[in-house]
Amino acid sequence: MKSTDVLVIGGSAAGLVAALTAKRINPNKTITAITKEEKTLVPCGIPYTFASIDGTDSNILPSDKMFKDANVDLIIGEVISINPESKICILKNNDSISFDKLVLATGSSPSIPKWLKGADLENVFTVPKNKNYLDIMKTELNKCNKVVIVGAGFIGVELSDELKKTGKEIILIEKLPHILGLCFDEEISIKAEEVLKGNGVIVKTGLGVQELSGDKKVNKVVLENGEIINTDAVVLSMGYKPNNKLAIESGIAMSKQGCIMVDEYMRTDCADVFAVGDCAQKYDFITRKPCCTMLASTACAEARIAGVNLFKLSAIKTFSGTISIFSTVIGTTAFGVAGITETQARNEGFDVVTGVFEGMDKHPGTLPGAKKQLVKLIVGKESSIVLGGEVIGGSSVGELTNVIGMIIQNRMNINSILTSQIGTHPLLTASPAGYPLLKAAGNVAIKTIYS
Amino acid sequence: MKSTDVLVIGGSAAGLVAALTAKRINPNKTITAITKEEKTLVPCGIPYTFASIDGTDSNILPSDKMFKDANVDLIIGEVISINPESKICILKNNDSISFDKLVLATGSSPSIPKWLKGADLENVFTVPKNKNYLDIMKTELNKCNKVVIVGAGFIGVELSDELKKTGKEIILIEKLPHILGLCFDEEISIKAEEVLKGNGVIVKTGLGVQELSGDKKVNKVVLENGEIINTDAVVLSMGYKPNNKLAIESGIAMSKQGCIMVDEYMRTDCADVFAVGDCAQKYDFITRKPCCTMLASTACAEARIAGVNLFKLSAIKTFSGTISIFSTVIGTTAFGVAGITETQARNEGFDVVTGVFEGMDKHPGTLPGAKKQLVKLIVGKESSIVLGGEVIGGSSVGELTNVIGMIIQNRMNINSILTSQIGTHPLLTASPAGYPLLKAAGNVAIKTIYS
Repeated sequence: MKSTDVLVIGGSAAGLVAALTAKRINPNKTITAITKEEKTLVPCGIPYTFASIDGTDSNILPSDKMFKDANVDLIIGEVISINPESKICILKNNDSISFDKLVLATGSSPSIPKWLKGADLENVFTVPKNKNYLDIMKTELNKCNKVVIVGAGFIGVELSDELKKTGKEIILIEKLPHILGLCFDEEISIKAEEVLKGNGVIVKTGLGVQELSGDKKVNKVVLENGEIINTDAVVLSMGYKPNNKLAIESGIAMSKQGCIMVDEYMRTDCADVFAVGDCAQKYDFITRKPCCTMLASTACAEARIAGVNLFKLSAIKTFSGTISIFSTVIGTTAFGVAGITETQARNEGFDVVTGVFEGMDKHPGTLPGAKKQLVKLIVGKESSIVLGGEVIGGSSVGELTNVIGMIIQNRMNINSILTSQIGTHPLLTASPAGYPLLKAAGNVAIKTIYS
Repeated sequence: MKSTDVLVIGGSAAGLVAALTAKRINPNKTITAITKEEKTLVPCGIPYTFASIDGTDSNILPSDKMFKDANVDLIIGEVISINPESKICILKNNDSISFDKLVLATGSSPSIPKWLKGADLENVFTVPKNKNYLDIMKTELNKCNKVVIVGAGFIGVELSDELKKTGKEIILIEKLPHILGLCFDEEISIKAEEVLKGNGVIVKTGLGVQELSGDKKVNKVVLENGEIINTDAVVLSMGYKPNNKLAIESGIAMSKQGCIMVDEYMRTDCADVFAVGDCAQKYDFITRKPCCTMLASTACAEARIAGVNLFKLSAIKTFSGTISIFSTVIGTTAFGVAGITETQARNEGFDVVTGVFEGMDKHPGTLPGAKKQLVKLIVGKESSIVLGGEVIGGSSVGELTNVIGMIIQNRMNINSILTSQIGTHPLLTASPAGYPLLKAAGNVAIKTIYS
């Protein structure tokens, strides 16, 4: 029986970071990672393998090299059971491995609603993080002229925008009134929708799917209102569910949401067992409620925490709870959000004020490639602390969203933002006198401090 | 005699922001701004008027419209004296204006060393923030085949890179061992130099200029080592000096550096007189020593502070001192810095450790337009607090530098960075598992916490 000091189950972003961090902190311990797939995909890069990059071969996480360089053992295999008490796990090939510390980074899989008839027809796809599946899916989609995508979260939207670049007719169906409706406030979602429609994607919102039909192969999507859409293929991007089977069967405590219960240091209720990433329960930074943020960046942040704290609680968490920080791109327009939206804040009962400002992302705005940049801030009325921010703009949106993320995590208030300093450059940022983040903060101040 | 509640002298970025902020906070007060020029240039955009944008007409700060929209009075004129006691200022046309509060935002002008012979020859230029001057300069430079630029700070480097795009032979001369030598650590400066040379600019470093010569028109640059460079024109970018004449003559206290002495709230030693921007003395956020940061972004931050606090100290400063945060672009490679460099830190006697990581600014790195991204962090050894950061990369460098700026201003330490959360997107940022800022922080941790 193989024995290892630390066993990490899962070799995607979270597993990789957990294993590498553990090794960095404990160079004398043996660290072993087990992953099911020979080649691990860059998870967020998957939509881009359909047009912007050649295919999945150009979207490989170089984890095998990174593991090797860091002196972490890598096993390709599937764990079928774990015993947290005897500290042994069993593989499908009957090998067993004993461990001192275990990190579960089992990830998530596409979720298909049980009520959806026809999901098992040919040419009905989901978007799993599985290279072989995606390669076959791409080959099949290449033969299609028309594709219906169901669910307009990030994956559905990014995939629609990408597949449209291949010249197909793309129809995106969403039950909510607007695309990305759970991520952004309505006015931002509407702008995202306009850009996507402008790129030629047909968007149908406010309408759920009732069933898929066809003879062997899918050829019809039936909507709730009876409308029938003929199609060559369907992609279901209706959310993901945590891969929790191993944990449930081993008796580790699970949350109502079906995730592994963890504390602030990613420890489960079983001594020496940690869980990180999509399979682990999260609590929102602002609302303090359970949430199901499934982002590679969140997973990696958790993996760093677990990796450091396996043997001793060493990295004390400065920030408590999960803050959603993410961005997406439609065509050449980027959308980002950090913290909670105005809608989420009001639904939670927060008393908030908002400030919005739209400027240009270069200065002067006459520079080639300059794009409009909009920032919206959501701020607690009494505390003046920033709870969330949304951004529309160009290629700097990702990092500008991270600036807002740092503001939220440091619990900065409007006064501290307005007395803080930023750097600007004509080709890289908005102007110092019209920097949308600060102007939006100024607009909040007018409504609160000076009203 | 005209009377105003608030008089702002200077209509560039700092004057504009001070006046607009003052009006926002005090809608019932009369605010008046005086500016010498009919049209105010976007200061940082000036180098780009030589190639990337049409000319100065496409680089105008729309301040007149902004003043009008905000109901701020604008006077085009030149102030020749101010009396802080009687609270009256006199204009060149003999008009006088009485004020309750005065904000000096007089800016800075190119500085030419007294010892430099030949600086008054024709076709020797500086880079002032003056539209008419720059228009003539561009016309004259268009006739030249060869231009020597003296001084490789930001302006000299950006101008070299821009003028090269017009097909001329460009020679950049710098006394320090490398270009941008006061801004970045040597290894970063060397990379900037490589990019600039790769773009075709001839760079001569470690050599001062001794004199300029020619018959009426400059035609030779003589270096310290006797070397003679024939040229059609010379641009001197050897630094800027504060426009301090009005303040000196009015008896306001000045610093040794020739700047107007101000406190944390931008108040001078004369009651009701404030100073902001390049003409005001600054103190470094990290070293606490006097410094001469002349950046539009810093000026605007000071202007916001002054504008809010004119009548009552209302916006209490959360952060004390000036933090340099800036970025530049050479070709398509961007360079950014926030806080102090390793060299500056060691010269000041700080006991620091550094962490460096180079990755890609998109993920996977196979995506079109992906560029290398390098982050270097400079961290106090005992405190583990981040003192500075440097970045090389693509179009996201400006905002990534602002992320580091927020980290420094919030005095985050390595533990709080490593337990913080960031957002990532394939097309907009580095990967979550290989995010250079966090990997650099991890490399600092290995040297300090876990060593």
